[in-house]
Amino acid sequence: MDILIRDIDLIPVNGGEDIIRDTNIYIEGDRIACIGEFRDDRDVDRVIDGSGKVAMPGLINSHTHIGMSLLRNYADDLPLHDWLTKRIWPIEAKLQAEDVYWGSLLSMVEMIQSGTTGFCDMYFFMDEVGKGLEESGMRGVLTRGLIEDDEADKKLLETKELYRRWNGEANGRIKVMVAPHAPYTCSPAYLRSIMELARELDAGIHIHLSETRREVEESIEEYGKSPIEHVNDLGLFDLPTIAAHCVHIDDGDMDILKDKGVSPVNNPGSNLKLASGFSPVDRMLKKGINVALGTDGASSNNSLNMFREIYLAATVNKAVNMDAVSIPAYTAIEMATINGAKALLWDEEIGSIEVGKKADMIFIDMDKPHLYPMHNILSSLAYSVQASDVDTVIIDGDIVMEDREIKTLDVERIMFEGERVARDLINR
Amino acid sequence: MDILIRDIDLIPVNGGEDIIRDTNIYIEGDRIACIGEFRDDRDVDRVIDGSGKVAMPGLINSHTHIGMSLLRNYADDLPLHDWLTKRIWPIEAKLQAEDVYWGSLLSMVEMIQSGTTGFCDMYFFMDEVGKGLEESGMRGVLTRGLIEDDEADKKLLETKELYRRWNGEANGRIKVMVAPHAPYTCSPAYLRSIMELARELDAGIHIHLSETRREVEESIEEYGKSPIEHVNDLGLFDLPTIAAHCVHIDDGDMDILKDKGVSPVNNPGSNLKLASGFSPVDRMLKKGINVALGTDGASSNNSLNMFREIYLAATVNKAVNMDAVSIPAYTAIEMATINGAKALLWDEEIGSIEVGKKADMIFIDMDKPHLYPMHNILSSLAYSVQASDVDTVIIDGDIVMEDREIKTLDVERIMFEGERVARDLINR
Repeated sequence: MDILIRDIDLIPVNGGEDIIRDTNIYIEGDRIACIGEFRDDRDVDRVIDGSGKVAMPGLINSHTHIGMSLLRNYADDLPLHDWLTKRIWPIEAKLQAEDVYWGSLLSMVEMIQSGTTGFCDMYFFMDEVGKGLEESGMRGVLTRGLIEDDEADKKLLETKELYRRWNGEANGRIKVMVAPHAPYTCSPAYLRSIMELARELDAGIHIHLSETRREVEESIEEYGKSPIEHVNDLGLFDLPTIAAHCVHIDDGDMDILKDKGVSPVNNPGSNLKLASGFSPVDRMLKKGINVALGTDGASSNNSLNMFREIYLAATVNKAVNMDAVSIPAYTAIEMATINGAKALLWDEEIGSIEVGKKADMIFIDMDKPHLYPMHNILSSLAYSVQASDVDTVIIDGDIVMEDREIKTLDVERIMFEGERVARDLINR
Repeated sequence: MDILIRDIDLIPVNGGEDIIRDTNIYIEGDRIACIGEFRDDRDVDRVIDGSGKVAMPGLINSHTHIGMSLLRNYADDLPLHDWLTKRIWPIEAKLQAEDVYWGSLLSMVEMIQSGTTGFCDMYFFMDEVGKGLEESGMRGVLTRGLIEDDEADKKLLETKELYRRWNGEANGRIKVMVAPHAPYTCSPAYLRSIMELARELDAGIHIHLSETRREVEESIEEYGKSPIEHVNDLGLFDLPTIAAHCVHIDDGDMDILKDKGVSPVNNPGSNLKLASGFSPVDRMLKKGINVALGTDGASSNNSLNMFREIYLAATVNKAVNMDAVSIPAYTAIEMATINGAKALLWDEEIGSIEVGKKADMIFIDMDKPHLYPMHNILSSLAYSVQASDVDTVIIDGDIVMEDREIKTLDVERIMFEGERVARDLINR
């Protein structure tokens, strides 16, 4: 479908802090064909009035576990170890494919409604997430979390099959990467098999690294190295790597991340709520490291609202560094858009609004009391916008949400089924 | 008007973490007449179907400067000193009564839409805020900020007149207190005059204390005491006191706050964004201090959304204390309701949903994808609810918002006038 968006304010996120006022965007098929010039003889299928709205690249949630929305608000205000071992792991062991299907769709509804167009997921029953991506119209990276146990080899095979079945599918909206869960759940030998598979598939890596202080202490105890030094010495970072968390890291770790072009994913909401700590985001960015942004799962957040993560990135780091200039609004917006695209090895296609790129964009309705008066759009997006201000979502050139109505999914049914399988899971 | 709310889940916030399922609430005039029992022969003016909704006490924003919404997103990502001296103060000097009127109404719209029913404001042209309270139906404490300058005595007179004109007005929805801005803007002599006035009026005190590290260092340099020790030695805390911020405080300060029954107001959003630091909320609460919650002004937040402050209180403190149990969901909800009522010396009337209290309450629409599945309402309210989930707002027994439509104010006009006076102010 060809779409013309008229008279919209545009934040392209292509380097400078540009705001292009009252412009026009042409979408031809799945790509952005033209920005600015208005050709009224143009033959388009749809004209959208963008006045009073701001267009920006769709948000990219670079680290999440979307099936976990079923466990939203299921276990909170607990010590981390109890949360994981007594509440989350026992119930995850009972999850079935159908649960992950509905949980993933519930998450996609929430993500679309809050302006996220693409994500990187780590979970299991990943075929269900692939089906959800096909149906929802979203863009996503599927990664099957690899924890070493009796089924370690089977999981490698699953990743291989996942790659063959889904990589490049849905007009290229779906990618598959390889996901060792963490160095504390994968031995060096297993990590080597995983790296071999990633090289064979020519796929990137998605891993948790240095989330908690305890994890770092135990790594030093076991290997005499931080988790980042440890996996780097194994050669993991010779593959393109998305490294979730990177909270407890030192200058040596940062130098490795920089040298190897690793993309850390900051998950401020999850790090706060699980009491993991504060990632040195400002120092990483100043070193030139590509820091992306994510929500983590809805059971540790307890939301998949990337506008809240933008807000947290732009504010929490100021207090941590006692520096009101730390992580300005625009930097936080970059983390949630172009930096995410780079992390997901997708920045040639998405992450900014530029001619030739895929049309993944969102429109924010600025005509809200809590956004008045309108002194500065960038500040507004980082500090004042609410998820419910997202008006329209376009992914791969298709209108996925308009006037807050999702066009691709049966929202009522997904809520019903999500509640049903969650009840069933608890009682299983 | 008599109102019957049927089949609603109720969080009364009256001590335990009670959740009363599928109950009924009767409102007679401005008060809660009955909870639970259903008398279908009852003669009421309105019946509201509460199914799928949660009733909780209206949120209380215990420290704000509501006229400052005109400066929302006007000056951000600047060092604190430049922000205040180069951007905020010069433009505030140009503010006129009409500006404060429209700015205050704009804030009231935002507050109502995000579930706030009462607030404590410190600003100037406070008669305009009084008018806004009359019109909006909100409940509020008016305090004229007292900064010592050439007009110091005139400002004391203004406070006196403000008290005579507004205290107890609008069926008791309006209170007036006395507001020395801070010990660094009021000399000991001026503070003594202020205390004398407060005693004369039998009014409480509203003051900023220990917001920044610099403020504390300068107080120690000048007086050999922390700001809290300093004003306590002057006798300020012999009056009931609302102490905004209390970020940089030590055990000695906390002991004073506890002994004197001072209510500190935590403003996490403002403290993060202005890089002020982290208030020791958990330690204060454990000492039995009544910590309330506020947004501060919309120019340092940049929102008046108390649900975001609840979220921040319940998460930021966990990471600061490296303790996932720090400030559980219910504690953060108490800070925003009953603790606020206590701080504002209003807990006999509001802050919880109990028979005999004034009917200040809000209903949250839980039928939203980002709140599914529904494992735990308290977690949901603290970690997942968005401002836009607030469906209905009742204040003093009157329906001020229903189905998100504000009944008392002309929202379109307020947005228009707010934008107009803000433009005019910038160009003045």
